[in-house]
Amino acid sequence: METLKGIAASSGIAIAKAYQLVEPDLSFEKKKVKDVSEELERLKRALTTSHSELEQIRDKALEDLGNDKSAIFEAHLLVLNDPELISQIEDKIKTDQVNAEQALKDVADLFIMLFEQMDNEYMKERAADIRDVTNRILANLLGVKLVNLSMISEEVIIIADDLTPSDTAQLNRKYVKGFTTNIGGRTSHSAIMARSMEIPAVVGTKLATTSIKNGDVIIVDGLNGEVCINPTTEVIAQYKNEQIRFEKQKAEWAKLVNESTVTADGHQVELAANIGTPNDLEGVMANGAEGVGLYRTEFLYMGRNELPSEEEQFESYKTVLEGMKEKPVVVRTLDIGGDKELPYLELPKEMNPFLGFRAIRLCLVEQDLFRTQLRALLRASVYGNLKIMFPMIATLDEFRAAKAILMEEKEKLVAEGIAVSEEIELGIMVEIPSTAIIADQFAKEVDFFSIGTNDLIQYTMAADRMNERVSYLYQPYNPAILRLVKMVIDAAHREGKWAGMCGEMAGDEQAIPLLLGLGLDEFSMSATSILKARSQILCLTKQEMVELADQALQMSTVSEVMEAVKVATKK
Amino acid sequence: METLKGIAASSGIAIAKAYQLVEPDLSFEKKKVKDVSEELERLKRALTTSHSELEQIRDKALEDLGNDKSAIFEAHLLVLNDPELISQIEDKIKTDQVNAEQALKDVADLFIMLFEQMDNEYMKERAADIRDVTNRILANLLGVKLVNLSMISEEVIIIADDLTPSDTAQLNRKYVKGFTTNIGGRTSHSAIMARSMEIPAVVGTKLATTSIKNGDVIIVDGLNGEVCINPTTEVIAQYKNEQIRFEKQKAEWAKLVNESTVTADGHQVELAANIGTPNDLEGVMANGAEGVGLYRTEFLYMGRNELPSEEEQFESYKTVLEGMKEKPVVVRTLDIGGDKELPYLELPKEMNPFLGFRAIRLCLVEQDLFRTQLRALLRASVYGNLKIMFPMIATLDEFRAAKAILMEEKEKLVAEGIAVSEEIELGIMVEIPSTAIIADQFAKEVDFFSIGTNDLIQYTMAADRMNERVSYLYQPYNPAILRLVKMVIDAAHREGKWAGMCGEMAGDEQAIPLLLGLGLDEFSMSATSILKARSQILCLTKQEMVELADQALQMSTVSEVMEAVKVATKK
Repeated sequence: METLKGIAASSGIAIAKAYQLVEPDLSFEKKKVKDVSEELERLKRALTTSHSELEQIRDKALEDLGNDKSAIFEAHLLVLNDPELISQIEDKIKTDQVNAEQALKDVADLFIMLFEQMDNEYMKERAADIRDVTNRILANLLGVKLVNLSMISEEVIIIADDLTPSDTAQLNRKYVKGFTTNIGGRTSHSAIMARSMEIPAVVGTKLATTSIKNGDVIIVDGLNGEVCINPTTEVIAQYKNEQIRFEKQKAEWAKLVNESTVTADGHQVELAANIGTPNDLEGVMANGAEGVGLYRTEFLYMGRNELPSEEEQFESYKTVLEGMKEKPVVVRTLDIGGDKELPYLELPKEMNPFLGFRAIRLCLVEQDLFRTQLRALLRASVYGNLKIMFPMIATLDEFRAAKAILMEEKEKLVAEGIAVSEEIELGIMVEIPSTAIIADQFAKEVDFFSIGTNDLIQYTMAADRMNERVSYLYQPYNPAILRLVKMVIDAAHREGKWAGMCGEMAGDEQAIPLLLGLGLDEFSMSATSILKARSQILCLTKQEMVELADQALQMSTVSEVMEAVKVATKK
Repeated sequence: METLKGIAASSGIAIAKAYQLVEPDLSFEKKKVKDVSEELERLKRALTTSHSELEQIRDKALEDLGNDKSAIFEAHLLVLNDPELISQIEDKIKTDQVNAEQALKDVADLFIMLFEQMDNEYMKERAADIRDVTNRILANLLGVKLVNLSMISEEVIIIADDLTPSDTAQLNRKYVKGFTTNIGGRTSHSAIMARSMEIPAVVGTKLATTSIKNGDVIIVDGLNGEVCINPTTEVIAQYKNEQIRFEKQKAEWAKLVNESTVTADGHQVELAANIGTPNDLEGVMANGAEGVGLYRTEFLYMGRNELPSEEEQFESYKTVLEGMKEKPVVVRTLDIGGDKELPYLELPKEMNPFLGFRAIRLCLVEQDLFRTQLRALLRASVYGNLKIMFPMIATLDEFRAAKAILMEEKEKLVAEGIAVSEEIELGIMVEIPSTAIIADQFAKEVDFFSIGTNDLIQYTMAADRMNERVSYLYQPYNPAILRLVKMVIDAAHREGKWAGMCGEMAGDEQAIPLLLGLGLDEFSMSATSILKARSQILCLTKQEMVELADQALQMSTVSEVMEAVKVATKK
């Protein structure tokens, strides 16, 4: 039995047969053609077949997996219907008198290169879409079939180099019991998807596709980051016990769904959920969230060709506010730019998008866009407990400017006779070091803080966490990060305000003891992490965690802090 | 008389005739050619002419302007001799049977596009080099002459949209009295060059090339950022007075060249210079620097095809140390990566190079390169007062790892019987927020800090200062930045260490009072700013500046801080 080590990306244990995600052979030879019109006809037929395949996949995705996932195939259909792309392929066939395969490849390579070089994650994903779609056309030209993950109809564990967004969108939980990949980390797309779908996953094993054969029996241990290949019956039995233990633990956690979150010595905190769309509400309620700590509104703006209308936004916000039934809902205003781009905004290409024109910086310039969102939020405010939060605030001037715009829109609505809540709290994301450092000044003017650790850590350490060569510097437990968190929390409390956190760190088992000790009021995380976090907090005491945090603040390296957490929580 | 407002990029006043830097007409038509060999011959002749022109310009630059500037034309000659480029042009002529102009343009556009999309400043400059060289070849094909700035032989003020590195390398101070451009800011390349050459300059006027005609009489007021076009004789007289006043002031400053830098109430600080090559020493001595606060060693590695040898580096370091005659010389180890790339290292393209694999991060991986530099430094240490400084330190682990490598190399040298100074101080750049925030931990292990404000401000504000849309967030006077500076200085002093600064901020007239109040020990700046800074500090009192700094630390916005500085220094 061989065992691969990887990164535990999504908890749980899966045992099933391996299903190798293999690309079919799409090789062909360049040919000169005499009959151009026949070649154009071949292209047309391949396009038609690809179109009906994609519609079928989309419909199946919609049925099995919901709106969110089927949207990816809508995007693929758009690529397939793009006259720019298709007419260039046709022209190429005509002018070069080559076979459709070659013409398709030449044009597709150019488009893919252009998109990939656009150098931001959103555009790179578009390149992946074009590659997906043109591979499908090519397969149809060659008469071979692509692997279709949504058509899997027996229990399997997927083995792949990596899973793309379109791959994961096709996964059906009923049959796909787990997956393991060669590349990726805890925050890669596939890992995040696995957690949200609650499918056990181990990523970054390096060797999955080479060590595992189709049909091998596989155990994916998403608790310890291990993959066993063709285990003995004893090992399978062991893991089945472990699986049962984990299911029992999950059942125990499930009992906490309506409990409040109180430490052993009586200190209460709030556990909230991060959401992206109203569709996420079901999971939020099922996992006992005490509120929504971060509603990312970007998804409303993405994967479409124009801005969402005020009405459309209003409906989404209202749905979430009503769905949460008076529980707090923190809505973050548009955080676009950087790695999240909207094609219809035509933002200039930037050398360092993470240090660029994004979020509130963009909203203060593109005010029409910002005001539309604020009006939608203000109108929705009467349907629940709304809190508005501005992202990427670096200076008090920016906060004041954003607040002034909000107040203007509020006055206009009131003048129009439209009801607006008077209880809306107004806060900011603390994700830029400058804001954490003068949090005392901000605390006089904002109603709350929510610490966005993903960005705060990147900027504080000057390391892009997506860049593998420096990701070792993405250090949530670095004493410098803990000190910034402390500054923010203390500043809030001194002014009688509250401080939350909505980055990955808030749901991290090892960070929670520290954050509790630092005095954090609200922890916002993936819904699926909430019950586990609650069960953890019930067993800790605030007083001991304060002592732990005080020590950690005076340490000099991550390893010292990790060791202290281990000692403090192991008794 | 029309007056343009711009950014005062280099102080002083210049009055002379305008010299419009106009690109000649290089337009041509695409033609099919029958005689391919004649076309190849035309290309060859144009290449030969371009070659001899460039050699001539290089020799003149070497004679008039020194080694540094002539190096740019060495790079151009390399492009001209690049077989990849030339053979592709030849192939294009042969396969497409087009005129050499068209073939040149097609190939050049492709190369330029590729380099520009490489998305870092160093590579973008390579694109500019290719554009320069291919324009020269094109001009020779067309039989037109390019403007040659180094051939100017009367007193002029240059008017241009912007000046490229190759333009500024051709400027002869004897004839070029000043310049003004449409675009650029205080930290753009042309502005930095103007200050180092002590040529008055106003950049970013937007309208210089459209409002000014060739031969107009122009006043460039680099003190106030104004450009007067065809001024009246009264105005000219006024400015001549102003010019005399400024020259007098400079003469007053010159008297301070051998003075130490002591405030009115007796507090002494050190004013040091930032240098890039041993050639800069002359200016350092002429301007009364008390040391070298930052020796950027990157220049040794740039504009060449392979790494510099240990011997070559040793000679450079020795020259600087001996030249400074026991005055302190802080050498920063290699800070490459990010916007400064070395083609022969083949670093991967990064999405956010400022948050990427650079400086010490790279050196801890590419240890051969690092060890060679450290050996050269250690060997040179006996020739003066050497201090070694590591750039981009984000964690104590990194500092410890870098120090361990240094100690290993030192032991090896000692074992080889080579003399190494026992007095070398070992410090770090503080340019990453995490390091400033836990400076107290670092202060126990380092001998000194040098605050690199250029990067520290970028990371703390999460804003790329080269990105025009967010450059408003590059705020040296933001209270958050002042607090970080304070943390670093206090941490150093508590451990009996010293703290310096080597970013742009250290030489800034408005920042100096604050930095003095915060307790900064060493100010390292462009050599040409030193005498002015000294004259300013002589008139300030430490005690009043401490009060100013204490107030500023409790403020919430830049404008409040700026106002307080104004009030505190205006009496």
